[in-house]
Order: sequence, then C-alpha cells, then structure tokens
Amino acid sequence: MNYRMIADILGRVLLIMAGLLLLPLTAAIVYGESVMPFAVTILLTALCGGALLLFRPRTRDIYAREGFVCVGLSWVMMSLLGSLPFVISGDIPRFVDAFFETVSGFSTTGASILNDVEALSRSGLFWRSFTHWIGGMGVLVFLMAVLPMSGERSMHIMRAEVPGPTVGKLVPRVRQTALILYLIYTGFTVAETIMLMLGGMSFYEALLHAFATAGTGGFSTRNASIAAFDSAYIEGVIGFFLVLFGMNFNLFYLILIGRVRDALRSEELHRYFEIILISIALIMLGTVQRYGVLGSLRNGFFVTMTTLSTAGFCTEDYMLWPAFLQTLIVLLMFIGGCAGSTGGGLKLSRVMLFVRTAAVDVEHVVNPRRVNRVMMDGKPVKPETTGAVYSYVALVVLILLGCTALVSFDGFDFSTNFTAALSCISNIGPGLGRIGPSGNFSIFSDFSKIVMAITMLFGRLEIYAMLILFIPSTWRRTR
Amino acid sequence: MNYRMIADILGRVLLIMAGLLLLPLTAAIVYGESVMPFAVTILLTALCGGALLLFRPRTRDIYAREGFVCVGLSWVMMSLLGSLPFVISGDIPRFVDAFFETVSGFSTTGASILNDVEALSRSGLFWRSFTHWIGGMGVLVFLMAVLPMSGERSMHIMRAEVPGPTVGKLVPRVRQTALILYLIYTGFTVAETIMLMLGGMSFYEALLHAFATAGTGGFSTRNASIAAFDSAYIEGVIGFFLVLFGMNFNLFYLILIGRVRDALRSEELHRYFEIILISIALIMLGTVQRYGVLGSLRNGFFVTMTTLSTAGFCTEDYMLWPAFLQTLIVLLMFIGGCAGSTGGGLKLSRVMLFVRTAAVDVEHVVNPRRVNRVMMDGKPVKPETTGAVYSYVALVVLILLGCTALVSFDGFDFSTNFTAALSCISNIGPGLGRIGPSGNFSIFSDFSKIVMAITMLFGRLEIYAMLILFIPSTWRRTR
Repeated sequence: MNYRMIADILGRVLLIMAGLLLLPLTAAIVYGESVMPFAVTILLTALCGGALLLFRPRTRDIYAREGFVCVGLSWVMMSLLGSLPFVISGDIPRFVDAFFETVSGFSTTGASILNDVEALSRSGLFWRSFTHWIGGMGVLVFLMAVLPMSGERSMHIMRAEVPGPTVGKLVPRVRQTALILYLIYTGFTVAETIMLMLGGMSFYEALLHAFATAGTGGFSTRNASIAAFDSAYIEGVIGFFLVLFGMNFNLFYLILIGRVRDALRSEELHRYFEIILISIALIMLGTVQRYGVLGSLRNGFFVTMTTLSTAGFCTEDYMLWPAFLQTLIVLLMFIGGCAGSTGGGLKLSRVMLFVRTAAVDVEHVVNPRRVNRVMMDGKPVKPETTGAVYSYVALVVLILLGCTALVSFDGFDFSTNFTAALSCISNIGPGLGRIGPSGNFSIFSDFSKIVMAITMLFGRLEIYAMLILFIPSTWRRTR
Repeated sequence: MNYRMIADILGRVLLIMAGLLLLPLTAAIVYGESVMPFAVTILLTALCGGALLLFRPRTRDIYAREGFVCVGLSWVMMSLLGSLPFVISGDIPRFVDAFFETVSGFSTTGASILNDVEALSRSGLFWRSFTHWIGGMGVLVFLMAVLPMSGERSMHIMRAEVPGPTVGKLVPRVRQTALILYLIYTGFTVAETIMLMLGGMSFYEALLHAFATAGTGGFSTRNASIAAFDSAYIEGVIGFFLVLFGMNFNLFYLILIGRVRDALRSEELHRYFEIILISIALIMLGTVQRYGVLGSLRNGFFVTMTTLSTAGFCTEDYMLWPAFLQTLIVLLMFIGGCAGSTGGGLKLSRVMLFVRTAAVDVEHVVNPRRVNRVMMDGKPVKPETTGAVYSYVALVVLILLGCTALVSFDGFDFSTNFTAALSCISNIGPGLGRIGPSGNFSIFSDFSKIVMAITMLFGRLEIYAMLILFIPSTWRRTR
C-alpha cells in the first residue's frame, strides 16, 4: 500500500474540511455566537491536514485498495473532527452523542439523539445541517473537482464514494465530471432555498432545509421537523426536490447538454416514477378516511419521497397509519434512491438487477439449456456486475442482521431494533416503533450508538470503503 | 414436457397417499369414531390416482423441469385432498382453514389456526400429526424407495424434494438411498415414541409427538403444546431427538456403516453444535434470573432446538423474555437445520456458503489480483454451487418481503407480519408478536392464509418446485 499517497490525500481532505468549516464560523459571527467551537476545530483540522501533507508521496500510484482506504479513513476522520464543535460549544456535551449526530449528518442518515433540536446554537444547527450537504455528494468528489489528478487514480476514489452498482464518467475527464456534479448539486440547492423562502421561511431555515434535502439527510431546525411549518407548499417544494435529488445526476447532465431523449429512456427512471406513483396511491388508499383526498395526497407524496429518497423528514406519524403502510415504508427504505443520486438504500438499479438476476437464475434452473442474460436499458449486463450486486445485497443483509443483533441488547422490541438497523444501513433516519417519526435515537446505549454510527458509514460508503478498514490483511505489510 | 410421465408419477403418489390414509382410518376404528372422513378421502384419492395412471407414458424420460413439476404438483394435490378429512368430520369445517392446517402439516411448519386443538377428534388429531411425518422425509422420496426407476430420472425428483444446497446419494442406487433414509427415519421415530412413553405419555400422544418431532413440524395434541406436560424429561427427550432430526441424515448412514470419523469431520456438524451451545448460553444469560440455573438451561435447550430445528413446539412464552433473545430467535429461524435433515430454514450449510462467498467476494474487491476460492470440508466449492446459494437466498428474501407485504393488509404490526412470513418460509410455526408462542394464525384473513400456505410450500420445497408452477413458460407447448 502506498501509505504516503494516502496520507497526502487525507491531508488535502482535512484542509478542504477546514475550509468548509469557515461557513459555520461565519454563521457564528453573524448571529453573535461564540466563534470558539469552530475556530478551535478549524485550527486542529488544518494542523492535522498540514501534518499529513508532510509525508510527501514517492509515487502517486494508487489502486482500488488505496482508493477504498482513502475514502474510508477520510470519512472516519471527518466524523471525529466534525463532532468537536458540538462538544466544545456544549450543544451536545457527550462525545459519543456528538459523534453519532455527526456521522448521521455526513452519512445523510438524519437520525438524531437530540430531544430538543431548537435548543442548539444557531451556528451549531447550521453545522449540523451543513454536514448533510457535504456528505451528500461527498468531500472526495469535491477534492476531485479541485485537485488535478490522473484519471485512472481518481476513478478509484470516485468509485468508492459515489453510490450505485456502476459509476459512469459523464465526460472523459474525472475532474470535469466532479465539477459538473457539484455545479448541478449547488444549483438545485440554491433553487430550493429560494423557493422555500417564497413559502415564508427565513433565509436561515430555508438554506438549512435545502442542505438537508440536497443530501437526502433529513435533519430539520425544528423539533417537529417539517410538520412545524404546517404548509402544503413547503412540503410540496421539499418533496419535489427530493424527487430530483433521488434521481441519477447523470440524467441532469444529459438534459443539460440537450440529450433529453437519452435521459428519459432510462429504465431506472421509469421504475422510479412507477414506485412513487404506486406508493402514493397505496398511502392515499390507507389514509383517505383520516385526511380526505387532498390531505392523503399531500401526505402520500411527502412520506413516499422522504422515505424512498431516504431523507427521513417527518410530517405525520405513520405509526398511526394502517399496518400495511408500515410494511410499504420498510420496502421503500430497502430500495432507496437511484444510483448516482444522493439517496441511500440499496439503490433502485441495484434492486432491479437483483430481481432480474434472480429471475434469470430461476429460468436457468427450470430450463438448463436456455441461456438468458440479465438486461438493463436494452443492453446485456456483465456477469461481474450481477455477481457484485448479489454479494452487495448479501453483505447488506449480514450487516443488517448483525447490527439488529448488537442493538437488541438494549432491550427494545424487534421492530425498533430491526428498523433502526435498516434505517442506519439505508441512511434514512426514522424507523418504526420507538424510533418512529415521534421518537429519536437517544433511547439507545453508547455501545448501540457506536454500532449504529459505523453501520451508517457502511451504508453511505456502500460497505467496501468501510469494511476494508476492518480487514487485517489491509494493514499487513506486503512487499 | 412429458405430461404423461408426470401424470404417471402423480398417480402413484396419490395411491401411496391413499395407503397412508389407512393409518388414521385404523385410528378412527380403534377409537370408535366415524370412519367416513377417511373412507371418503381414501376413495377419492385412490380414484384420482387410478385415473391419472390411465395416461400411460410413451417414454419414461424426465428432466429437471419435469422433476420439479412432479414434486410441486404432488404436494399441492396432497394438500388439497389431505384437507378433506378435517372438513368432512367437521373438525375444521371451513376449507381454507383445513387447507392451511394441512399445508402447515405436510410442509412441517406447524403453524395452526386452531384455538382449541383438544376439541378435535382423536383420528383427526392423528392425521394432523401424521402429515408432519409424511412431509418431513417427503412422499416422493418414499415413492423412490418403493418404485423401481432409473437413477438419472429419480435423481431429478430426489433433488427437488430433499432440502439442502447439494444432494448426495448415499449409495449408487437412488432406490436404496431412499430406503436407507426411510429406515433411519422410522427407527428414530419408534425410539422416540418408546422414550416418551417411558416419561408417562400414552402411546397415542407419544406417537403423535414423535411424528411431529421427526418432521420437525411442531403440532401438538395439547393446546399448551409441550408446556402441558410440564416435564423436564419429556422436553429433554424431544429436544434430544430434535438435535438428531436437525442433522444431515447422511451422517447417520456413515455412522451405521462404521465411518464414524468421516461423519464427525463434517464442518456443518461442528457449526451446528457451536450454534446450539452459544444459543443455550445466551438464553441462560437472559433468563437465569427468571428461572434459575437449571430452569434456564432446560428452557435454553428446548427453545434453541425447537427454533433451530424449525419444529416450533412451545413451552415458555419467549415474548416475555429480554428483547435480545427475540432477535436471537429470529436469527435461529433464518438458519434452520442442516442440509439433508427434516429441518427447515435456509439450512446451515447454505448459510455457511453464503457467508464464505460474501467473504471471498470482499477479498476480491479489496485485492483484485488474489484469487480465493470458497472452501467447505477442506474442498473448494464449485462456483455453480455458490452462485446457486446466492440466488436461493435472493429468492427467499424476495418471497419473505412479498409475503410480509401481502399479509400486512390484515392490519397487524410489523413484527407479527414479518415473523409470520419468516415462520412460513422457514417452516417453523410460531413467530413474534401476535403469533408468538401464546398466539395462533386464526387471526389472519382467508387471503393471508392462502398466501402463507403457498409460502410454506415454497419453503419446504426450497422454492423451485413451487415456483415452476407459477411460471407461464412451464405450461407453454414447445415442439
């Protein structure tokens, strides 16, 4: 392993993070709050970053393994350092809690241990929501956008951080791909902020909710989450942007360069809208008596999008809805957004490949002589890709069961434990039972919080970049 | 497809079933109950069987596809005809309920819709428990034992009915393999009956509980299940035989012919005993305060075996235990017995292959240049086998989620729905929540009962033999 190159990249990531922390620092100045929490963190982060840059790499070669390690270590270090402002300011005095909250932010999970969000300092809240925005697109993709690097090298990093079964470059150069992604991401965030302000939100709250929407995270500035605004317009705007942020960003690029037809031909996109429509219809069916037609449409749209995109904002307490809708919500949690979106879950195209591969396997058992191939967008899918989907789902199931088992020592019911684990691996936020829309994660022990924080990182980084840190052979010295 | 040959085999299966029904008929005569329910069913079954035999096959060739169809159709027909005695006698007047109970019997699930088991006629109870014994080893394996057939042909059927990722022939001839399996099966059943009688059970109850143990089914003659006997001896005997019936029957054959060492070398066997010991230790840990050391050992052993072997007998209501034990129980439900046992679940060797394949896949992503192979019992496993394990687990997950979704329309909580589906696909019996040890399946709608009955057959026949019946291309005319 090229440790020096890893240190080099980690150093740059931390310098970028120190730069990003200037934003909440500014917020602290504007709102007349103490600048200490951010000043200290920026200093420490910059020092760590600078120290790591002292290891000058002898060669700049990195392989898939180094790519995973870079990404995994970056996210762990960012989460550890990112917890400091909360601890120093006293917003979240205990480090484990602050770590859980920060990981939940960066991983765009949006699960919270806070009983009273509104008690936080304004700059603390700003940082909390900003972590969603940073984590949504990924700080290493940001690094790619600003750092000149050879295509081969940076693809290893890109592949480890961008979600989905396959990562396509939009343009031949990785740097430009990363830049385009961030431009679209920022453009949508600005647009949403403006539209939320038109609905009567303050600039501060509009921006923070736009951050949380963009990363499909789900942190709010209010204890009651989006329900606090009680506005169909605001729910509509957030729901609309969740539809966008749950889509593959490649499609927006295709639309930007005028290839609208190619964009609209994506099978994943068709299934995405089908699932949204079916889910809205089912929720309307189950809640029309409770809310009336318009009310159930409003709730159906918002809950569908907040769950499928894995944002996890809350309006209505769906624990009070008919039970079959809770199963629907669990299914949506499993699926998640499209590949190449900021949404979590298994990713829709992976679910499609999974189902299609299973169907082809069945055909093969039934008719051994007929050779069928898994198709996607009219093209046959490589066996390596379908194999990777199977093993990815296998790992998710194993981590899900493992996390459920470890968390269950806290003594809550099976629904709570299972959906807490599912919520963490899928980066959603709320679950069912004690962690439904009206509950939060403060009920768990420190041990469970750490297990869940690690599970969230597993989910956001699609397992391998985290798993590699736990494999002894990664750290063994080889020639 | 060779429809005539399928009709020929189905006809023979029904004739065997008519013969097996003579046993409950005898019970009815002995206990002075009406013989009508069984006489009518025997007549009808024999007539159907005879009629099917009129289609004389032109060739006796069958392939994998015909093997699956034979097994799938046999089980569906046996379940439909097997429901009749309950309906005719009035023991279970509604056909859907009788069908659910019969499928639950044949599939060795042991889930019941009966609120009062003790109200049944003695011959009805006999038939109910006897279905477990028939379903445990499989009526087609029985057919193989009595019917001369070429090895190639019968292996297709054997493979479709005997559980596990790979089916080994004990001896070169399939017929003898089937005979040996049935001899061991019968021997153990007789031994258990005698040992239960030594514990004070009547012959009738001892035999019926031995039937239910042998098939790892779980039907009891008492409303309180095994708890009604309140005897550590009886729990010990049943637990001991569940250990045996949850083991691969090939091992008993190896022991019989003196190859004890080979038998004891099986990796699956080692993991089996490790899981049993760990599970007992965890249950003791969680319940020692409630029951004391000996009491928690007794409950730990019995609940571990009844869950892992997927029998599903009940003694204590584990819904009252600490929550982490409920997660343990769900994990045991997933695993199930060893391959080639009468137990359900995913089968232990499949779980081992699943975990090992996932580990090798991770290694491959991390170190693309290193080539690792999945090993089992010291030998490399064929890629086809590991691929089949992945797709099997994929199908189980899809059916599990599908069944959970369909059942959830009845409006119960997520734990109940999810563990009901898991209980059906794993052929266990009880679950958590409303269908825990003190509940039963009568709460569900007819629609859910039919969905769950089909899910049980999917579980018992390891998916393909049932799935093939639902695939249109199976029934399409080819050349």
